[in-house]
Amino acid sequence: MIKVAINGYGTIGKRVADAVAAQMDMKIVGVSKTKPSFEAYVAKKRGYPLYIADMAKKGAFTKVGLEVAGSVDDMLKIADVVVDATPGGVGKQNKSLYEKIGLKAIFQGGEDHEVAGFSFCSDCNYAGAIGRQFVRVVSCNTTGLCRIINLVDSAFGVERVRSVMVRRGSDPGEVKKGPIDAVVLDPVSIPSHHGPDVITVLPHIQITTMAMIVPTTFMHMHAVQMDCKREASREELVRRIEEHSRIGLVRSGTGIKSTAELKEYALDLGRPRGDLWESCVFADSIAVLGKEVYFFQAIHQEADVVVENVDAIRAMSGTVKDPATSIRMTNEAMHLSAL
Amino acid sequence: MIKVAINGYGTIGKRVADAVAAQMDMKIVGVSKTKPSFEAYVAKKRGYPLYIADMAKKGAFTKVGLEVAGSVDDMLKIADVVVDATPGGVGKQNKSLYEKIGLKAIFQGGEDHEVAGFSFCSDCNYAGAIGRQFVRVVSCNTTGLCRIINLVDSAFGVERVRSVMVRRGSDPGEVKKGPIDAVVLDPVSIPSHHGPDVITVLPHIQITTMAMIVPTTFMHMHAVQMDCKREASREELVRRIEEHSRIGLVRSGTGIKSTAELKEYALDLGRPRGDLWESCVFADSIAVLGKEVYFFQAIHQEADVVVENVDAIRAMSGTVKDPATSIRMTNEAMHLSAL
Amino acid sequence: MIKVAINGYGTIGKRVADAVAAQMDMKIVGVSKTKPSFEAYVAKKRGYPLYIADMAKKGAFTKVGLEVAGSVDDMLKIADVVVDATPGGVGKQNKSLYEKIGLKAIFQGGEDHEVAGFSFCSDCNYAGAIGRQFVRVVSCNTTGLCRIINLVDSAFGVERVRSVMVRRGSDPGEVKKGPIDAVVLDPVSIPSHHGPDVITVLPHIQITTMAMIVPTTFMHMHAVQMDCKREASREELVRRIEEHSRIGLVRSGTGIKSTAELKEYALDLGRPRGDLWESCVFADSIAVLGKEVYFFQAIHQEADVVVENVDAIRAMSGTVKDPATSIRMTNEAMHLSAL
Amino acid sequence: MIKVAINGYGTIGKRVADAVAAQMDMKIVGVSKTKPSFEAYVAKKRGYPLYIADMAKKGAFTKVGLEVAGSVDDMLKIADVVVDATPGGVGKQNKSLYEKIGLKAIFQGGEDHEVAGFSFCSDCNYAGAIGRQFVRVVSCNTTGLCRIINLVDSAFGVERVRSVMVRRGSDPGEVKKGPIDAVVLDPVSIPSHHGPDVITVLPHIQITTMAMIVPTTFMHMHAVQMDCKREASREELVRRIEEHSRIGLVRSGTGIKSTAELKEYALDLGRPRGDLWESCVFADSIAVLGKEVYFFQAIHQEADVVVENVDAIRAMSGTVKDPATSIRMTNEAMHLSAL
Repeated sequence: MIKVAINGYGTIGKRVADAVAAQMDMKIVGVSKTKPSFEAYVAKKRGYPLYIADMAKKGAFTKVGLEVAGSVDDMLKIADVVVDATPGGVGKQNKSLYEKIGLKAIFQGGEDHEVAGFSFCSDCNYAGAIGRQFVRVVSCNTTGLCRIINLVDSAFGVERVRSVMVRRGSDPGEVKKGPIDAVVLDPVSIPSHHGPDVITVLPHIQITTMAMIVPTTFMHMHAVQMDCKREASREELVRRIEEHSRIGLVRSGTGIKSTAELKEYALDLGRPRGDLWESCVFADSIAVLGKEVYFFQAIHQEADVVVENVDAIRAMSGTVKDPATSIRMTNEAMHLSAL
Repeated sequence: MIKVAINGYGTIGKRVADAVAAQMDMKIVGVSKTKPSFEAYVAKKRGYPLYIADMAKKGAFTKVGLEVAGSVDDMLKIADVVVDATPGGVGKQNKSLYEKIGLKAIFQGGEDHEVAGFSFCSDCNYAGAIGRQFVRVVSCNTTGLCRIINLVDSAFGVERVRSVMVRRGSDPGEVKKGPIDAVVLDPVSIPSHHGPDVITVLPHIQITTMAMIVPTTFMHMHAVQMDCKREASREELVRRIEEHSRIGLVRSGTGIKSTAELKEYALDLGRPRGDLWESCVFADSIAVLGKEVYFFQAIHQEADVVVENVDAIRAMSGTVKDPATSIRMTNEAMHLSAL
Repeated sequence: MIKVAINGYGTIGKRVADAVAAQMDMKIVGVSKTKPSFEAYVAKKRGYPLYIADMAKKGAFTKVGLEVAGSVDDMLKIADVVVDATPGGVGKQNKSLYEKIGLKAIFQGGEDHEVAGFSFCSDCNYAGAIGRQFVRVVSCNTTGLCRIINLVDSAFGVERVRSVMVRRGSDPGEVKKGPIDAVVLDPVSIPSHHGPDVITVLPHIQITTMAMIVPTTFMHMHAVQMDCKREASREELVRRIEEHSRIGLVRSGTGIKSTAELKEYALDLGRPRGDLWESCVFADSIAVLGKEVYFFQAIHQEADVVVENVDAIRAMSGTVKDPATSIRMTNEAMHLSAL
Repeated sequence: MIKVAINGYGTIGKRVADAVAAQMDMKIVGVSKTKPSFEAYVAKKRGYPLYIADMAKKGAFTKVGLEVAGSVDDMLKIADVVVDATPGGVGKQNKSLYEKIGLKAIFQGGEDHEVAGFSFCSDCNYAGAIGRQFVRVVSCNTTGLCRIINLVDSAFGVERVRSVMVRRGSDPGEVKKGPIDAVVLDPVSIPSHHGPDVITVLPHIQITTMAMIVPTTFMHMHAVQMDCKREASREELVRRIEEHSRIGLVRSGTGIKSTAELKEYALDLGRPRGDLWESCVFADSIAVLGKEVYFFQAIHQEADVVVENVDAIRAMSGTVKDPATSIRMTNEAMHLSAL
């Protein structure tokens, strides 16, 4: 049993905790919060021991019925691997804590590549993470791009990728962030950071990305175009997506044309929190023009990296060497099946 | 086993179907759809036989892998009770179908009181529904008002209610309805229809409501004020809400201040579809000034009437005469426990 | 000519600048910005001398073609009155600057009453501001409440006011603030601060307010109920509103049912920036039940206090002693006529 | 004086009316409405005679103080040109009315190319419209694409265009249309109709477009990429945009990064209704990589076609043969100057 601590039990951390708890070969030894919140109550109901950064705040927790198991330092001591799911930039600060005690740590895409020195996507470079102390699971958008670029690259060879990233303004449970009524260029300049981030995983790919933020909470949408090295085939592309366990195909018969309907479908299917761990490619959008491929894919920003974190734990621990085996174990434990 | 058909497998219908299927004393004999959609696939995965209104469209279903069990008429013949969850106004048209074959039918709050002649809320008038052929479960907003008014009335006597209803513009899965950036008075005139609708259930209550629509999808928010007949007590009010199985208390320690955080909490708790079947009163908002009571309550428009429909089925079937027993059976089958 | 400086040329500051510039008896001697922005270009096009807080940043302005006239201290020296339109809380810090040089200053509603010691609404207490050094123009919501409460009070005597404030999440030009999809109780507790704030202007009024924030940018909406001392009359109330120059009546024939349509109308009328300086009461919403009055009013958060600032300048300067005269002068210069 | 009638005084019609009224060589002889509304009051204030489609509804207008000058047929008889700004698809039905009396008519982009047989963009094909009876001014998005593609084509030769169109869900004054919280693929299939529509104006261009709808009201955003025939130069591109009177450059110094800030700037500049008749290219977004050009442009859906309609009137009337002259006349009358 790999003993896993979750430092930062928020949007990503709480999902990784549940995903880890579902695996046969892993267990959660603790999760951390900085202040009492509904998420702390959820941790309690799930039976995850609750650790806090600042023990001076212990009273604030116990006053509202939340038992504190100890400090974050205490938690780190009993873990084999820590998943750092703190807000972007905090992971970098936490790194020295992990170094000091020689603890394996996974950072999220909000940290720079240099923090871990290795950027991870199960499909693309699982083997490279085996035995490493530090790994960074790339962001939701980068994960979504890497999966499909890698697939198309295997099929037809990718010459060049162009992608417009239309990003959600906030997560559904956030209420302070906007915009309310605007399209915000983020950044105005081209390319956005997403292209270079893909290259941390797939260094041989040529890619230019443009990014904006819109007033929605559910998912990101990517409008992707690729120039391939060889003549592409729509049939072959669809077939390969169908065979891929983490790229879902949103089929015509469902009538789904939007992120909102897609999330509703995930909720109806009984997925926990309505999570879509797979990238969601719209079948009807796939167009092939000679060597050019076009399509739309929706990315659930809260979920797609969750399964990647689980695989990264296994790779770093060295218990499973074969990527396909780990991916299958992760997926099965979470009942991830075709849309 | 009460055999239940769901006519209209949409936002409400699909939830009532799952709630019915979870009961020990009921089963789903069929659900109806007018065209293929992701919801039809969900019915298939759940094992609910799929019936369609227009058999000429059978090919459209079978073509995308959806087996059709028969026509809506076929479905009605094998049911003891039909839950009509078609869009507002369609239920009225369907009534003659049910009358013709003497089938018990439940209508939703989108229909006028006169369609059924009896408007239902489990808390308030379960007994009146026993043995009836037609019952109307009042709308989500009216259900939310009836529950809490009835509770305050029992505690302190209600002299007069004033409520401002801030309504969501569309359900999360709808993408055509707005507004995107506006507060819409609906209606401009005062009072709105909600007050009179409460009176179909609680005829002795004086109530004036004002209503508007805002650009959100998650829940309605009610800003409620009541003049009581007797001096009210905050402590007593909180205690009674805590004892009520379908009025939840959103507690201070959770830090929840919005509909979005409340829905996130429901999803984290593992509620199916993140459903909040209970009215959600914000504990910190409850203010008592002499005989006056003020508070905010959030109402999950997709969910609160679901449990009421289940009780209505039992009352009409006459199998359970005691309201408290039916409510407890319904709640337990759905694992409805305190927030 | 009263020489007016605007400290903080943002949403409110830029509007007050234009309103002041339109008056016969006032002129703008300068406006301040902290960094280059499109608003600084607008100041330049309008011919308002641009002053900056931190002269070390002068280069950043001149580099993009924006001439700097001097420091904020320089600006304050040449003014008779400064309108402090800096973000909430900053005015309090600025006060000592104004005190040091004995400059008359107007603060906005984002500051506490105590900062100025006198809270102003032209309708209600113009006379009290005559000759004062410090005056606080109350917030947009409080201004909107004071105007109509004062009117109803004169007509029928106000016993008690209850108002639910449904507030816009951000101004149209802001892109960082949310919520995107939520109703946020702000605060959860009842009463909100709006009631006590009304009392700083109208100390004899009994008022309880509840407040929430919704995902819209255009206007606030108030759902108001008043208990009057005397039998009220709808006809009389409508007549008095029609006679009031800063309470507009949104008439039935316009078909306007929302804040968005109201703003569109204001833009169509050629109002600068589509500004609604008047409170906007929906004629069809006005309901009188014996001594009770109900109505909806929309408040343009960017605009209604602008005309109040102009009157406050005149009152403090002591040049016009009669409120009605100042109000008429202000309105006429801005071509404020009935909706 | 060219006598112009506006059939359909809504979002586009009311703007074209004001633009026409501002020209030295044109006048408005009438505008039409189907029912009383705030826009009808605006027409009255502007002094535009009001005509109605169905004379049976005359009473509804006069009852609310709106004088009716006659029927739409009456209006058409006294016009030299009619601008049909009715909702998409209605123009096609109206065509026979115009044919019957031999009246010149302009249709909007909501109609198919075939309705007029000639699709117009001032920059690209003014000459082709001279003397024609029927002309279709292409949609706001197509106009925005045609202007910049034509400019880049003149500069560097355009080999291929790829554009992702992120469209606003509704206009600011609309309150029924959504989505509230979703990205909607419209259409899911690729290419969207925008590419083929560009080809009705610029038949030699290769273009593929993808389109989606997001919950905002202010402007559309285009993420554009072009492959050029010759090596492109950023400097040259910027210079040509600066020289173009209907492509504005959103400059770095303004700090504008979003549609909302851009609209705020337009309102601050005193533009009527905050209208942006020019396409708005973000200077900082322009990236040139060899023969590839990338940039973002924002398109004000309510405004950019307005100036095109005015030019089309002049071309069809044959009074001005030179495109540059008409464009200059139109722009000057509307005080269109650089952002």
